[in-house]
Amino acid sequence: MHFTTLREAPSDAEIPSHVWLLRAGMIRKSVAGVYNFMTFGWRTVRKIEQIVREEMDAAGAQEIITSPVQPAELWHESGRWQVYGPELWRLKDRHGREFALGPTAEEVFTDIVRNEISSYRQLPRNLYQIQLKYRDEARPRYGLMRSREFIMKDGYSFDADPAGLDESYAKMREAYTKIFTRCGLDFRPVAADNGAIGGSGSEEFQALCDYGESDIVHCACGYAATTDQAAGVDAPAADGAADVPPMEEVSTPGTKTIEAVADFLGVPQERTLKALLFVVYEDLGAGGASPAPTDGGTPRAATPTAGYAVKEYVAAFVRGDRALNMVKLRAALGGVAEHLIEFADEARMGAATGSVAGFTGPVGLHDCRIVADSEVPGLGGLVAGACKEGYHAKNVLYGRDWTADTVADLKLVGAGDPCPQCGAPLAIARGIEVGQIFQLGTKYSDALGAFYRDDNQQEHPIWMGCYGIGVTRTMAAVVEQHHDDDGIIWPLSVAPFHAIVCPVKNGDAEVAAIAEGIYEDLLAAGVEALLDDREERPGVKFKDADMLGIPLRITVGKKAAEGIVEYKPRAEKQAAEVSPAEAVRLVTEAVKGI
Amino acid sequence: MHFTTLREAPSDAEIPSHVWLLRAGMIRKSVAGVYNFMTFGWRTVRKIEQIVREEMDAAGAQEIITSPVQPAELWHESGRWQVYGPELWRLKDRHGREFALGPTAEEVFTDIVRNEISSYRQLPRNLYQIQLKYRDEARPRYGLMRSREFIMKDGYSFDADPAGLDESYAKMREAYTKIFTRCGLDFRPVAADNGAIGGSGSEEFQALCDYGESDIVHCACGYAATTDQAAGVDAPAADGAADVPPMEEVSTPGTKTIEAVADFLGVPQERTLKALLFVVYEDLGAGGASPAPTDGGTPRAATPTAGYAVKEYVAAFVRGDRALNMVKLRAALGGVAEHLIEFADEARMGAATGSVAGFTGPVGLHDCRIVADSEVPGLGGLVAGACKEGYHAKNVLYGRDWTADTVADLKLVGAGDPCPQCGAPLAIARGIEVGQIFQLGTKYSDALGAFYRDDNQQEHPIWMGCYGIGVTRTMAAVVEQHHDDDGIIWPLSVAPFHAIVCPVKNGDAEVAAIAEGIYEDLLAAGVEALLDDREERPGVKFKDADMLGIPLRITVGKKAAEGIVEYKPRAEKQAAEVSPAEAVRLVTEAVKGI
Repeated sequence: MHFTTLREAPSDAEIPSHVWLLRAGMIRKSVAGVYNFMTFGWRTVRKIEQIVREEMDAAGAQEIITSPVQPAELWHESGRWQVYGPELWRLKDRHGREFALGPTAEEVFTDIVRNEISSYRQLPRNLYQIQLKYRDEARPRYGLMRSREFIMKDGYSFDADPAGLDESYAKMREAYTKIFTRCGLDFRPVAADNGAIGGSGSEEFQALCDYGESDIVHCACGYAATTDQAAGVDAPAADGAADVPPMEEVSTPGTKTIEAVADFLGVPQERTLKALLFVVYEDLGAGGASPAPTDGGTPRAATPTAGYAVKEYVAAFVRGDRALNMVKLRAALGGVAEHLIEFADEARMGAATGSVAGFTGPVGLHDCRIVADSEVPGLGGLVAGACKEGYHAKNVLYGRDWTADTVADLKLVGAGDPCPQCGAPLAIARGIEVGQIFQLGTKYSDALGAFYRDDNQQEHPIWMGCYGIGVTRTMAAVVEQHHDDDGIIWPLSVAPFHAIVCPVKNGDAEVAAIAEGIYEDLLAAGVEALLDDREERPGVKFKDADMLGIPLRITVGKKAAEGIVEYKPRAEKQAAEVSPAEAVRLVTEAVKGI
Repeated sequence: MHFTTLREAPSDAEIPSHVWLLRAGMIRKSVAGVYNFMTFGWRTVRKIEQIVREEMDAAGAQEIITSPVQPAELWHESGRWQVYGPELWRLKDRHGREFALGPTAEEVFTDIVRNEISSYRQLPRNLYQIQLKYRDEARPRYGLMRSREFIMKDGYSFDADPAGLDESYAKMREAYTKIFTRCGLDFRPVAADNGAIGGSGSEEFQALCDYGESDIVHCACGYAATTDQAAGVDAPAADGAADVPPMEEVSTPGTKTIEAVADFLGVPQERTLKALLFVVYEDLGAGGASPAPTDGGTPRAATPTAGYAVKEYVAAFVRGDRALNMVKLRAALGGVAEHLIEFADEARMGAATGSVAGFTGPVGLHDCRIVADSEVPGLGGLVAGACKEGYHAKNVLYGRDWTADTVADLKLVGAGDPCPQCGAPLAIARGIEVGQIFQLGTKYSDALGAFYRDDNQQEHPIWMGCYGIGVTRTMAAVVEQHHDDDGIIWPLSVAPFHAIVCPVKNGDAEVAAIAEGIYEDLLAAGVEALLDDREERPGVKFKDADMLGIPLRITVGKKAAEGIVEYKPRAEKQAAEVSPAEAVRLVTEAVKGI
């Protein structure tokens, strides 16, 4: 058996799944963000794949496979060749033809369907694949959680109308619930952002973990959403806007933060206006590195690069004590791609728009798009920057002193904020997105021309949904939820092996024979069993078995001659003394119950 | 069920497997040499994969998976980054780091093993994967036969010594025989060239087909080899070299071919010497397109390109009636890569070496490496070009008038040539290489530093073998061997479905119910069955079932009410009338026998 456990994980392994998958020899790093799967790890991946396959097939979906090397032409047709940015891993063949290593396959499946489906009689249809996907992350990390290569199940439904799409979507939602339940995950579906995929309705399946990459707000009333997507609740509008005194400049030297100016003037932060300045780029299509490398949604200050031009400056305003939600801002700006927006260089922006670092307010800005959070117009007179070094203005009133080009919900929702459904304070948790389901509508069928004819020979675009499951990420999420200080504790459904038999009296022929007999009985009963016949001390064997996370262990030791062995589930502390036959029965029953 | 059959195959589909896999909707082209697999096709691929997996596991090999995106560093370590030429599909990530889409994975597996194996106690080991592979062919063709992307099982054995390698190799040879037998292929293992993989012993598993890409010579005595590799048998040496009259120039105006000069002078072609001129390039490592795009072993006249310099000119001489074997010539030149040799531009070469197009002979050449076939020195006086426009020379005698820098077997062996084992005339057949097994020796372990320590703590390189199976190519080979004018005839072992039930009386509720009953009984018996409940004419249903190649068909028609249905294996012309229960029994028995 090929396996190698490590005493320590490499220093870049920060979270439990990364640590234990490496230490137990399940995965080995090839280069940053690319992993090879060793014998045990690959068995678990294939079990997850099989669960996905069974539930997809049961829901009426059909498996096909498409190449991860996707022709650029299709991405041009959908317009995503530009939009996707530097995370799209591009390559050329020997003739110079361009391709992408697909991060997803909407274009490819739409292309297949436009060539093969022409009539309403062929609808609905649901096709899926389990295939390698690529995302050329700037800084891959957390092992299988944010890798550049990963195995994904991606599926696409094709319906004649929105009602059909709703039905297909509901079936997938149910299948996903079954899949993640069978994988042993504690998860919940949450309202989600559509990201670069596009389309309308969407939910993420989030596995709740200590080290998840997503923040999820949830409420006892059942509401759940990523903080990217959670709707903010506006503060009640203030009365008496007509009575707000005239705007007045006040000297506030050195008060460059909301906290400082609120303290200085002795007003609560809720009575101030926070300004955030951005530059939005236009991709000139000439290639070159993106000006704003993405990093999980946080834009970084950078200088523009060749191939990109400044499209516009943006000033976003939220109440002083609020945080801005970048995903909402990008949506409010009409869907700006993550890599085309960044915090503005204040010196450059100041010259162009009249803004002044630390003292920017809505009055005095020019040549700049102004976006205000939806509650701002109702807040009455506020303290804001005066666009003048060392000065703020008091009684700055929306509608009288300034207006915004765009008003939209920009608030980042956090713990304690009111639930948009019931108003109770929201709780916050971290989650790992293991799956996502989308209602794409006709975005791709319109762009690529995937039409069907109804029974009157009228052409209509096909209504599409798309449905992804991160197979290797699911594996990581299972480990995040199922481990202890000794290693992994695989749920039986996805364990590389169900059971391990450990003879712990080396050189004792009777012990060896009993262990071998139990092992053979387990195999005969259809159990995926291991026999640890290495000449190692019991402690070494137990340590390895625990680290590998084999769910059930049978130890054959000194009482074996009396007909007693130990049966111990990995998740339990105590072993039970039973007969060999009973141990085999217990394991077999547990495996039957998967 | 998603399937679409085509009335005609696209015009670029030239061979039966390409035609029928497309027409039956098993595969769909993405771009040249890259295919997507639809529902039926993917089921067959997965069945072949499963057969491979079972036999590999039974032979003690262990499955892992490695990324098809391989870091260039490993290819530099083995030296193959240069050697592999333009068929290695290269790419860069966003940081400019170089990768290859792996055509094979010796480096990756050697890297894994050097990190994880250090002791003789961990040997032997045999690791394999079933993974996408890439070869950026200049002109992909024949569908799955010569594609740019393909699924390959590649396995690697690791042993302590040559005897261990022999044993591992023998196990794999046996496993391969089982695998191809289970896939229903008529094949034979043949002695083979090592190609770019390197190492010593090697055999190819060739499926015999009308349209194979390899030529295989074989003999009743058991000898078989590709023509690339088959040893030529020298003609017996002529007597009386001492009596050969002096060399004599003769005017042979316009006789630029062997045929023309032999006719003109009235001598048999065996008494002439054929010259073939080549230029060999050196790769300067500066990148750029190869000067000699490879095309199945035939070099093409081209002009040198940037990044390459002329290394030397070569004149190869064989008996006038012989053909030259390029693989043997490249080996005789010390292992020149396929893309670094091409037919010389005669004008350029003439100026540099004294050769004259159509009149080149060994006497008068200069600044040029001369290579002679092994039988040439023994042939006595021959007619050869005089390196002078319009002239040949008679009585040109090796050893007296000229000598070669290198003498080696250069002969292309063909049908009727003597068997190198028994001397009987060889037969020739075409074959598709579906698998290859190699004894690599220590080539990669030396290059990458994969060593183990023996029980005296002495370090030794690990002895490696490598073993490939073209999974998707095997699928094509099966179709080449199993089809007729109506479509595919899948062997039960790899058929996408075992059986199809065709009710052929539309609208008849009793017929529909009986068909449904048979279908349910088949499923319950573990048969992979289809029910063609489309409202189509019997002819359409039969045509589709035949094209798809479903091995067993049960037709439920007008005699169904009398308890009679038709049972028909796809490979047979006649259907048998049997009871529904008997039909189910026949199918179930056949499936059990797989």
